[in-house]
Amino acid sequence: METDTIAAIATTVGEAGIAVIRISGPESIAVVDRLYQGKEPLGELDTHTVRYGHMTDPATKQSIDEVLVTVMRAPRTFTREDVVEVSCHGGMIPVQKVLETLLATGVRLAEPGEFTKRAFMNGRIDLSQAEGVMDLIRSKTDRAAQVAIQQADGRLSRLIQRLRQDILESLAHLAVNVDYPEYDAEQMTAERMLTKSREVEQALQGLLTTARQGKILREGIGTVIIGRPNVGKSSLLNALAHENRAIVTDIPGTTRDVIEEFVNVRGIPLRLVDTAGIRETEDIVEKLGVERSHQALSRADLVLLLLNHSEELGDEDRKLVELARQHSTIVVVNKTDLAPRLDLEEVRSLIGDLPLITTSVTEEKGLDALEQAIADRFLGGTIQSVDATYVTNTRHIHLLKEAQQHVRDAIEGIEQEMPLDMIEIDLKNAWVSLGEIIGDAVAEDLIDQIFSQFCLGK
Amino acid sequence: METDTIAAIATTVGEAGIAVIRISGPESIAVVDRLYQGKEPLGELDTHTVRYGHMTDPATKQSIDEVLVTVMRAPRTFTREDVVEVSCHGGMIPVQKVLETLLATGVRLAEPGEFTKRAFMNGRIDLSQAEGVMDLIRSKTDRAAQVAIQQADGRLSRLIQRLRQDILESLAHLAVNVDYPEYDAEQMTAERMLTKSREVEQALQGLLTTARQGKILREGIGTVIIGRPNVGKSSLLNALAHENRAIVTDIPGTTRDVIEEFVNVRGIPLRLVDTAGIRETEDIVEKLGVERSHQALSRADLVLLLLNHSEELGDEDRKLVELARQHSTIVVVNKTDLAPRLDLEEVRSLIGDLPLITTSVTEEKGLDALEQAIADRFLGGTIQSVDATYVTNTRHIHLLKEAQQHVRDAIEGIEQEMPLDMIEIDLKNAWVSLGEIIGDAVAEDLIDQIFSQFCLGK
Repeated sequence: METDTIAAIATTVGEAGIAVIRISGPESIAVVDRLYQGKEPLGELDTHTVRYGHMTDPATKQSIDEVLVTVMRAPRTFTREDVVEVSCHGGMIPVQKVLETLLATGVRLAEPGEFTKRAFMNGRIDLSQAEGVMDLIRSKTDRAAQVAIQQADGRLSRLIQRLRQDILESLAHLAVNVDYPEYDAEQMTAERMLTKSREVEQALQGLLTTARQGKILREGIGTVIIGRPNVGKSSLLNALAHENRAIVTDIPGTTRDVIEEFVNVRGIPLRLVDTAGIRETEDIVEKLGVERSHQALSRADLVLLLLNHSEELGDEDRKLVELARQHSTIVVVNKTDLAPRLDLEEVRSLIGDLPLITTSVTEEKGLDALEQAIADRFLGGTIQSVDATYVTNTRHIHLLKEAQQHVRDAIEGIEQEMPLDMIEIDLKNAWVSLGEIIGDAVAEDLIDQIFSQFCLGK
Repeated sequence: METDTIAAIATTVGEAGIAVIRISGPESIAVVDRLYQGKEPLGELDTHTVRYGHMTDPATKQSIDEVLVTVMRAPRTFTREDVVEVSCHGGMIPVQKVLETLLATGVRLAEPGEFTKRAFMNGRIDLSQAEGVMDLIRSKTDRAAQVAIQQADGRLSRLIQRLRQDILESLAHLAVNVDYPEYDAEQMTAERMLTKSREVEQALQGLLTTARQGKILREGIGTVIIGRPNVGKSSLLNALAHENRAIVTDIPGTTRDVIEEFVNVRGIPLRLVDTAGIRETEDIVEKLGVERSHQALSRADLVLLLLNHSEELGDEDRKLVELARQHSTIVVVNKTDLAPRLDLEEVRSLIGDLPLITTSVTEEKGLDALEQAIADRFLGGTIQSVDATYVTNTRHIHLLKEAQQHVRDAIEGIEQEMPLDMIEIDLKNAWVSLGEIIGDAVAEDLIDQIFSQFCLGK
């Protein structure tokens, strides 16, 4: 149990009206009080109240900044500890200076994710809720944000807890049967357990069917645009980015040169490989050879193959079609505004089952159809019920599959009339795997690893 | 008087723990209440209290984000209106979505600086305080921040008000004398006014002596580094930036290519011309010709001329020295770690009064002396009293000079025994000029112009 007091800037640093410093821990109110000058000491305030005042340098008594200070007393706070939020003026200097002065009084700078970690360690939220909070912050579309806030609010957790409860009840039956075999016929126990286990397995299967879409919402569709030079790849990219809100982010931990660009296509985040990468694909087959081209494309979730409607199909096009057929490709025939030279029937026969969309990016025609085709491909064309519980996180998917396998083993064991104590082991394992999703009995180093991926001040 | 309700994101947008939306105006509490779901309606809360809850989409009833909402009722708020601050999760989507939902309920998106403008229009702060707030947000060094917070806290305003009061008292004497000449000898009135006016003129002069330093603190010292290729210009730049915290900002309203880099040298912000510009100066004289080189350098507040200690003085160096002598230059003889070839005595005779510092950037020697030389040049070498009131803003400096000229005219008029009503006009003009600093009787379009330079959400 950590008991020191931590502080960090909780907003993005930059020129803005407000920046917020969050302080959490047993000393938080006392420490801020030492710098605060206002009508009354913060220690005398009721919980969840806000006061205007100044943060001052205790050495010089000079004002550092004009602030609003919010006092929130444990346990009704984000971390379940005493929390103070200091709302300073934005900008590089004032908020840094206030933080430095706080740190000089003995508060420790929080590690990334440490506030949320405390919320987890103190039982306010479970692990999947904490991960939902971070997904919300990192979300790239409204839809992804919606799924993330539901996870943060505990929707997935409640479902997992219900499944664990079901398994626990089966185990209880087992225990009764093993300890007091006279209480129940073994056969009856087995039948009840079979029914229950099948229900749990079905529920897990149901959850896992949302996983593909969930993962896409969380991580985006890795998209590569290929095609001959001058077929309109950059124009298509710009048209998609222009029509939709594009979000460009630096990938954390890499140099600033590697950027991700997200384009929001009907709620689905398309994660576009950086433009340098796209440019390279102009002669992807020539440059990489067929084998390595396949490798490159198989890393993408979606390939957009552009063909030129105003030119005859060339050898290079044929090679690209052949390549693309083995991947998740949508064929886009562009430049329909120019005189047609492309034999569309030939293209159709070559591409087989791949969907084909005709566009004129310059005349902004066909983009709607393309976006619909992308949505069809990844969301099955149907509007998903907002009531579905999405599994989005690779860690969760892995654990759900693990739990499903254990339950299937248990079912098989029961069907084959294996000894009940072996089935008990399978069910216990399933219970443990599900527990790891919500952070029950998770190893400390895994917890550290998960929270270290959070941003500073969260 | 504006009476609608406005909202804006008050923090920088980006991945962070918290982002804050500020809402101000008569409808602010009611509007947020329509989206807020928590234990009790916000309308029932006391002022300056904080509640946990969710912002929901009124159409779908789905949660958009988990929030803390702060309710502050007029008049004890930043704008003197009812203010609500909604603390959302950071990141691109959640905060945008909450704002969009608020705007959809009829709140208007605030213009840049509109919250501060309301604080000014409603009499909570005067114009120079509002400008101080923005200077604080934009400040690049601790020292600049300190001066800005003092201005925001009304230090300059109080001084200006005192001077206006003094002028007003003189004008009152005048009025008495003009209306009831029998009450006082004209001679006595003139003498009193002369004394008073001289005091005011002295005070204005005192304020204006801080202006040069104040302007530097606010805007930074525009610095150009010149010297022959390979003399160590980039290394010096990096060494200064490395030892000190460098702040790089985009210049608002320009393309992203134009950046300003600020290096904090003993509290003084050096504003370094972008590196592209510095590279161009390698052959500044050849490229631009002598006349235009002078023009380029005269735009800089400080020229750092680098010479190479390990090479003999060349023609190019001599040209640069000649150029630099006519500007505010510090001569830096670099590479003292290598075998000396430069005739330092010759350099000294060529540079005249210019300060000369020897450095070895690679061995990190002499940088302290260079920084001290810069500080000496711009802060007069003495540590300024923290009690001095700095004038930092070009608008203020202009108005102070204007007021000073009016007061001087008045003094001259009294000395030359001009008619008292002419002197009255001069003093009234001085009173009006000073008033413009604090925003008294300032034209509406000037106010709009000043606040439009503020950042969004402030």
